[in-house]
Amino acid sequence: MTPTWVPGADATLYTVANLPYGVFSRPGEPARAGVRIGDHVLDLAPVLHDEVFATGSLNGFLARGRTAWRDTRRLLQRLLAADAKEVSANRAALESHLIPLRQVRLHLPVEIGDYVDFYCSLEHAANVGRMFRPGDEPLKPNWRRLPVGYHGRSGTVVVSGTPITRPRGQRVAAPGDEPVLAPTAKLDIEAELGFIVGTPTRLGESAGDFADHVFGVTLVNDWSARDIQAWEYVPLGPFLGKSFATSISPWVTPLEALEDARVPGREQDPAPLDYLRRHEPWGLDVSMEIMLNGDQVSSPPYRDMYWTPDQMLAHMTVNGASLRTGDLYASGTVSGDEPSRRGSLIEITWNGAEPVKLSDGQSRAFLEDGDTVTITATAPGPGGTLIALGEVTGTVLPTPA
Amino acid sequence: MTPTWVPGADATLYTVANLPYGVFSRPGEPARAGVRIGDHVLDLAPVLHDEVFATGSLNGFLARGRTAWRDTRRLLQRLLAADAKEVSANRAALESHLIPLRQVRLHLPVEIGDYVDFYCSLEHAANVGRMFRPGDEPLKPNWRRLPVGYHGRSGTVVVSGTPITRPRGQRVAAPGDEPVLAPTAKLDIEAELGFIVGTPTRLGESAGDFADHVFGVTLVNDWSARDIQAWEYVPLGPFLGKSFATSISPWVTPLEALEDARVPGREQDPAPLDYLRRHEPWGLDVSMEIMLNGDQVSSPPYRDMYWTPDQMLAHMTVNGASLRTGDLYASGTVSGDEPSRRGSLIEITWNGAEPVKLSDGQSRAFLEDGDTVTITATAPGPGGTLIALGEVTGTVLPTPA
Repeated sequence: MTPTWVPGADATLYTVANLPYGVFSRPGEPARAGVRIGDHVLDLAPVLHDEVFATGSLNGFLARGRTAWRDTRRLLQRLLAADAKEVSANRAALESHLIPLRQVRLHLPVEIGDYVDFYCSLEHAANVGRMFRPGDEPLKPNWRRLPVGYHGRSGTVVVSGTPITRPRGQRVAAPGDEPVLAPTAKLDIEAELGFIVGTPTRLGESAGDFADHVFGVTLVNDWSARDIQAWEYVPLGPFLGKSFATSISPWVTPLEALEDARVPGREQDPAPLDYLRRHEPWGLDVSMEIMLNGDQVSSPPYRDMYWTPDQMLAHMTVNGASLRTGDLYASGTVSGDEPSRRGSLIEITWNGAEPVKLSDGQSRAFLEDGDTVTITATAPGPGGTLIALGEVTGTVLPTPA
Repeated sequence: MTPTWVPGADATLYTVANLPYGVFSRPGEPARAGVRIGDHVLDLAPVLHDEVFATGSLNGFLARGRTAWRDTRRLLQRLLAADAKEVSANRAALESHLIPLRQVRLHLPVEIGDYVDFYCSLEHAANVGRMFRPGDEPLKPNWRRLPVGYHGRSGTVVVSGTPITRPRGQRVAAPGDEPVLAPTAKLDIEAELGFIVGTPTRLGESAGDFADHVFGVTLVNDWSARDIQAWEYVPLGPFLGKSFATSISPWVTPLEALEDARVPGREQDPAPLDYLRRHEPWGLDVSMEIMLNGDQVSSPPYRDMYWTPDQMLAHMTVNGASLRTGDLYASGTVSGDEPSRRGSLIEITWNGAEPVKLSDGQSRAFLEDGDTVTITATAPGPGGTLIALGEVTGTVLPTPA
């Protein structure tokens, strides 16, 4: 791995092999784009002499396409390398644009276009099917034929750290009961991997190569109110049980940083239709951890997902639906094959029947006011190293009176 | 009704009592905002000396809120009135900013934030339930308790006149069959009324008064591929069967132009929960017509909808989901209680079993390539007059090879 001259960075999981992009501001200054290196952010507009990084989102840069993404990354890797010729001449100038993370506020990195949430974990879909539709086949007939998905509310996608107000909504205590309006009693999380679109398509066209369109990934917590969802979701799908908030990392990790994390996708039976056939390995060996009030409660394995992100993109656009720069699509809850690897509390606690025990002696069926959930993840980097994805965290606030 | 000095306008349904807003451009010039009067558009930026109208969308103006909407409308009504003092002095200047519609191109009037589609017609929901879930109760237990809705794809909301490419997608010929990828064989329309949000809310807050937030209405054609939808929609709702295109009018009719169209909403049994209680009459007596290749095939009555738009807004935000300027929410298919008043072909032809006959001797179960669908609507204006809503039209193109 190429060492960097940035103090301390080589001892972190944010080396020059990582370099995720984000949007930051210093007090009283406008937001601008940067890359993270160690515990610093490099202010890109002055370093690269490019005003596209002086705006409040990454969208302008993302719209430039894959060649620009690659060239910019290579240039930044050269500038940050310990032995770089460019640096010996300009070190002082570069250092002046390197800002400690503790001095900045991080913003939503992307102006989100549409937000689509998929349902790509076989274990998650089967678990939820068993709980929501007891007595039926857990997987619907379409599940192994296509990546099931739906549109979420892009206007309530928020950056990590944004407090999450417990939503109110209609729910019923038991089937046949009168609905009541009340704060959700089943506030949950969904640990997911999200994909950010850079290169758009035109209406009526299908997307081409995955890596030509998708710029990078982000961690997603798709907060969910299970009681609201269970009552509302037939026949048109989840709505208010999801639309109150979805949190994403402040850092978007470019696909190029995940080269060493690429794995073949899980075997699929039956073989998918041609348009869903995989051409390259786009499974990703991303290991996630879910922390609840500081205790690790699960470690979901993204590499075990049934549908891979290239398949999601192919499916989402096969009908000619266009992509916009800034579109976000997420994997759905990442759940592995054991309880300790499930990506939502409803699965971990089996709809509350088996509460999770915390180290302070408390237990949780679902989230309580004041709880903090943090999702972190790592992936293999070059030469046996690891890179970290930007964490996503949020604390639950009580429903206002 | 106040007459206008604009030639011919008093003989149209676009009088000074109407004045819908849109975005237009002349060849080689940037797009800008205007109001329609008769067969002209008044170029607002120079007339009102306000740069908010010199941009390519109405969003800036919509964000100003209800008082600004009202004041602007009153001023325009004075300027356009035949006896206006302001005009006698400035007639020549005003006339120079009045452009014949045939000289302009009309654009998507609003930069859409989120797009939510509801399901508010009892007759439509019951008809679809009977066809999609034969043997079950047509209405799910939640239907009379809350306005069921879901998020659509805002990036594929297009302006009237945009050609609609027939989507491809997975479908099955019969339950248990292998799915195939093919152009939809059941391309359909949904005639709806859409509501455009002006004043935003903050995350965690519910919306207040309907007319404080909603600026106006537009006609919507929510194109649908019924075979794709039927295969994909369980359990997360419609996705690719809808996301290929949704067309809206180029004209947004302000709520203030619909004062004489307001009617009490349809009686609801059981009474809805408190947060869904109606405080003012926001049913709207909008009469729609659906033309297929020039033949009228249905006349859906918006006034008969079960859930009213104030209830949709209250429901959509009761969980704290924020509103953005430019959010669009639509009523769902407007279907009345007779076949001649249904808002989709799947209902009119009962899933193709009873094709509709056209005046040229052809018949249609669903749409064929080259077909043109136009939805128009009128509503009562002052003194027994009518106002027109901007029509929404589209022609079907074949799936590309």
